[in-house]
Amino acid sequence: MSSIAVAVVGAAGRMGSQACAAVEAADGLELVARITSGDDVGARVRESGAQVAVDLTVPSVTEANVHAILDAGAHAVVGTTGWDDASRGRVTEHLDRLNAGRADGQGVLIAPNFGLSAVLAMTFAAKAARYFESAEVVELHHPDKIDAPSGTARHTAAAIAAARADAGLGPSPDATETGWEARGADVDGVRVHAVRLRGLVAHEEILFGNAGEQLTIRQDSFDRASFMPGVLLAVREVGSRPGLTVGLENVLDLS
Amino acid sequence: MSSIAVAVVGAAGRMGSQACAAVEAADGLELVARITSGDDVGARVRESGAQVAVDLTVPSVTEANVHAILDAGAHAVVGTTGWDDASRGRVTEHLDRLNAGRADGQGVLIAPNFGLSAVLAMTFAAKAARYFESAEVVELHHPDKIDAPSGTARHTAAAIAAARADAGLGPSPDATETGWEARGADVDGVRVHAVRLRGLVAHEEILFGNAGEQLTIRQDSFDRASFMPGVLLAVREVGSRPGLTVGLENVLDLS
Amino acid sequence: MSSIAVAVVGAAGRMGSQACAAVEAADGLELVARITSGDDVGARVRESGAQVAVDLTVPSVTEANVHAILDAGAHAVVGTTGWDDASRGRVTEHLDRLNAGRADGQGVLIAPNFGLSAVLAMTFAAKAARYFESAEVVELHHPDKIDAPSGTARHTAAAIAAARADAGLGPSPDATETGWEARGADVDGVRVHAVRLRGLVAHEEILFGNAGEQLTIRQDSFDRASFMPGVLLAVREVGSRPGLTVGLENVLDLS
Amino acid sequence: MSSIAVAVVGAAGRMGSQACAAVEAADGLELVARITSGDDVGARVRESGAQVAVDLTVPSVTEANVHAILDAGAHAVVGTTGWDDASRGRVTEHLDRLNAGRADGQGVLIAPNFGLSAVLAMTFAAKAARYFESAEVVELHHPDKIDAPSGTARHTAAAIAAARADAGLGPSPDATETGWEARGADVDGVRVHAVRLRGLVAHEEILFGNAGEQLTIRQDSFDRASFMPGVLLAVREVGSRPGLTVGLENVLDLS
Repeated sequence: MSSIAVAVVGAAGRMGSQACAAVEAADGLELVARITSGDDVGARVRESGAQVAVDLTVPSVTEANVHAILDAGAHAVVGTTGWDDASRGRVTEHLDRLNAGRADGQGVLIAPNFGLSAVLAMTFAAKAARYFESAEVVELHHPDKIDAPSGTARHTAAAIAAARADAGLGPSPDATETGWEARGADVDGVRVHAVRLRGLVAHEEILFGNAGEQLTIRQDSFDRASFMPGVLLAVREVGSRPGLTVGLENVLDLS
Repeated sequence: MSSIAVAVVGAAGRMGSQACAAVEAADGLELVARITSGDDVGARVRESGAQVAVDLTVPSVTEANVHAILDAGAHAVVGTTGWDDASRGRVTEHLDRLNAGRADGQGVLIAPNFGLSAVLAMTFAAKAARYFESAEVVELHHPDKIDAPSGTARHTAAAIAAARADAGLGPSPDATETGWEARGADVDGVRVHAVRLRGLVAHEEILFGNAGEQLTIRQDSFDRASFMPGVLLAVREVGSRPGLTVGLENVLDLS
Repeated sequence: MSSIAVAVVGAAGRMGSQACAAVEAADGLELVARITSGDDVGARVRESGAQVAVDLTVPSVTEANVHAILDAGAHAVVGTTGWDDASRGRVTEHLDRLNAGRADGQGVLIAPNFGLSAVLAMTFAAKAARYFESAEVVELHHPDKIDAPSGTARHTAAAIAAARADAGLGPSPDATETGWEARGADVDGVRVHAVRLRGLVAHEEILFGNAGEQLTIRQDSFDRASFMPGVLLAVREVGSRPGLTVGLENVLDLS
Repeated sequence: MSSIAVAVVGAAGRMGSQACAAVEAADGLELVARITSGDDVGARVRESGAQVAVDLTVPSVTEANVHAILDAGAHAVVGTTGWDDASRGRVTEHLDRLNAGRADGQGVLIAPNFGLSAVLAMTFAAKAARYFESAEVVELHHPDKIDAPSGTARHTAAAIAAARADAGLGPSPDATETGWEARGADVDGVRVHAVRLRGLVAHEEILFGNAGEQLTIRQDSFDRASFMPGVLLAVREVGSRPGLTVGLENVLDLS
């Protein structure tokens, strides 16, 4: 099996430089371009012969990069934040045009989170949700974080809430009459608690309860290094998924 | 929608009496027979009009009960232990005879564990296993337990080992040179630790690690009451699954 | 060594009947009176020859019981809630009168919590508090609890706050700008989170963090049975502590 | 209050360079010498006017360094491993000679572990041990560690065993008949389990159980940075403790 040729866009950044090292060390992948700010993304991708380009840049340029990558004939893996319905819609249109009439079209995978443990925790939580009377989420982060609760925890809680609604479950039982001043939020009826503690990085604990039993799914991210297995997985999978895919969970084999 | 008529076999036992109460309290189920030791199981199931019979008896009689239930025209849900390949094979043959040429045949669901949290933990662990470099299992029980590690933990570790092998992963990294005298075992290359502590009931923690991240799935069973949601789920699902099904995970909706 | 003669007041209640059983099963203790509602507490204690009386009644009668126990010449161990500064002050006055000029006076031990794990968790948390930059408390209870956070968690957080202030530490670092709507409270600057989950009983987790390290102290109460070792310890110790003692931690040997 | 003048011996090493930075950043401490391999330790300490010298070198030179520091008139804080009864005895003799007839003698503090969370966890575990029927220890480390269980876990288990013996407790209850092949050991009758997982650093969990309750003390070390608060505390306290002190716990205020 020949290698997949990979370009990294944003190669000088912290995520980008780790991604370059990870691609170089990985079996079956070859790093063919380190693209940095100032480079012509489309030209560099085309000239390098990259089959997959990984965008790890900043919100202000990520959409333009993706369109350039697509026009250069490569698949795109995107770890940059800042995407909304409108920008995703424009990528879908672009893909529809490029892929029309082709069996093996180009693919774009936007992954808000490359952490396998985080993505699996969310995915399992959504699957478990319908089987428990109670569900709450606790997220724990370093104390320099400005927002509470975290985006990941909000996303997890929303997925739990949707699964509960889908299964006809009402809100988790709760007789509390007073005391709603802690850090955190109610996300679609699921309570999310936010702990801030020096020494922590990014952690999430999802708690489910029935009479006499509890299921806890916990995820700990200690280091940016933890995102690399997810990046490599995305690079390997994007080529076999034409069109736009949002979320690493959609390329995991969880059957 | 009319109710499902349910018989409980072993209705005087601890699990059986709780199951009777749970069926009586459940929407859409009707308890039509409490069958106890000395009763003619087949006759009682037939006369009561039960559509589903739940066997919560003892290993010495459970197989005979299942054949009697099937001959009485009902589906069977089985929580009794002691089944092996031979006894399961005889039930499959019986079902094949009964169901031949029918689109909507009879079903038997044998569940070694009715605890939803335990079954979900095992299922998620098997799905996650291929994505992590390291995996170990810690089970924790009351100190009166004779075997170590627990059957559930062995089953979990075996499923993790199978998933790792399937994904081409070798054993978890381990530089340990000395110190192999703690309670627990190596199950197909997956290390299982067994903690015994007064005050505990039955708990399992599955730990996965990659560089910079950890995923932990923990399950706590505090009380036999925790098995009832699984019993009710099995009763509701067995009618739509002709043939033999082993394991509650096979009737969960985890898509 | 001869046994200690023990009376239980409120012997027909749930805590009281368990306490009777625990005293009867304990080495070195003898149950001499089961006093219930309607009995003359003072007369029963005196006639039974009880050296220690354990009050496990209700807030409306506990203070009167303690005065009657003292007048009957016994030491008192009190597990009933509802005490305030005024009622404690009256007991202190009573003890001062009785104990004046005696080397070995009578003692009263009021224990808001007989759970050894809960009392130890609180005590250790207060001792650890001065050594960490960050401290937060998470309490977890069944969903039928009306107040949040729990009294135990409030008490723990207040003790942590006092120890931090004593050591000259300011508030835990926290850059959070938004999101203060979760169950819980700010207790003297220490954040307390309250989780409610079916299947839980009463649990507390105290988290401390410094750069690069974390200390977690967790306490689980699964059953009222867990209070009995604390009751027995109090019964054994109250005789050697003349005057009023509040808190089981004061009779633990933590040197 | 004037500053304490501090020298760091082994200043070029990983721990040493972090200690230099920590001393420079700390209130009330002044870094006066960075002593490295090849320097004359005694001369450098004397010339710099250091009141306290911190030895963070290697086992082969640490004892000679401590004697030189003492002869130069400074107190010593030692984080280097490799000390035994004989080398500690020689330091005690040296201190006895120097301190004879002085009210405020010189001090040496040898700390096998500067991690506050680790030291507190061990200390609290020893204090709690007498109050629980069951106690077990789980330590978790990265998979490149050669020994199992860790020295810290062995030390913790030995302290728990000593406290149990002191309180007249026998071994923790355990009906296990088979299954003793997991990573870990029996340390004086206390079971120690050793988990090895990629992504972990150094962690310890101490579990205590009584009927109906559990106390868990957990300690996580993510980074060498976590040792610095302990180093600074030792530097501040060593001057007021003449003679040899072994263990950071002896300078903590846990009253």
